[in-house]
Amino acid sequence: MNTNAFRKLSYGVYVISTWDKGKATGCTANSVMQITSQPATIAVSVNHDNYTNGCIRDTGKFAVSVLGEHSAPSLIGGFGFRSGRECDKFEGVEHEVKSYLPVLKDACAYIVCEVIDQMETDTHTVFLGKVLDCDVLKDDDAMTYAYYHNVIKGKSPKAAPTYLPEEQ
Amino acid sequence: MNTNAFRKLSYGVYVISTWDKGKATGCTANSVMQITSQPATIAVSVNHDNYTNGCIRDTGKFAVSVLGEHSAPSLIGGFGFRSGRECDKFEGVEHEVKSYLPVLKDACAYIVCEVIDQMETDTHTVFLGKVLDCDVLKDDDAMTYAYYHNVIKGKSPKAAPTYLPEEQ
Repeated sequence: MNTNAFRKLSYGVYVISTWDKGKATGCTANSVMQITSQPATIAVSVNHDNYTNGCIRDTGKFAVSVLGEHSAPSLIGGFGFRSGRECDKFEGVEHEVKSYLPVLKDACAYIVCEVIDQMETDTHTVFLGKVLDCDVLKDDDAMTYAYYHNVIKGKSPKAAPTYLPEEQ
Repeated sequence: MNTNAFRKLSYGVYVISTWDKGKATGCTANSVMQITSQPATIAVSVNHDNYTNGCIRDTGKFAVSVLGEHSAPSLIGGFGFRSGRECDKFEGVEHEVKSYLPVLKDACAYIVCEVIDQMETDTHTVFLGKVLDCDVLKDDDAMTYAYYHNVIKGKSPKAAPTYLPEEQ
């Protein structure tokens, strides 16, 4: 089994967000895909260790902010390399509330969902969300994981907070 | 709800394959993502209308062939715009059996899985597969849906069989 094969799967770069008792929280993720179009549903995979996982269970809702190639790279590290248990990840991050969920203003699109099903694995929960609201925010190409890896990571100094947690 | 937001989600281009009573069959798909690494699991979304869906249920196994930028574009249409109910999609397509599943020789990587869970939606099944075997076949960049849409579709004559079914 040569696990380099997994590197051939294509992903985007996203911030999954929800509420933590009235405070916005979220985490960086790659694993988001649309499942159905009528009604529109989206699946996202969130590690059990991510504080966001429990918050999505509590609220039954989540938002996906789709990062674009021109979104600030600091968002990736800010939502990725620290825990919402210990800090306010949204502090200093421009965001707005769309259909009662916090989304990033610097994203190229957002999708707000209500959890309608979930599938458990040893380390991750796959949440199936029915789309309540979505919109395009900017005319920017979506950031792919390959773009992040080849362009942004290459351009960032090592100390920059652009660590992307390996969600898979 | 502006569903153009869904176009900002990033995908690859894949052929999902399995056996139909001893005959290889499969379909084109975009919706594949790794869920866990230990043990390695992969989620794929397959429309109920795809003949492959029932065949995966029958066999309990599927393979993902990851198309690369240099894979033959005809594979996308060949596995996408016709049904395995009516034809042998693997006829004339170079393939080999890896861990008892048929995979495309022209893919850049393959992943063979055993179904360990599934989640139903109105139109699609999300199969969760435990990875039994995987390998890189070619040093080629994975084909993203955006690459397919912007480069291959643009290069192909209209009559070419490069129709990609909208899996999401």
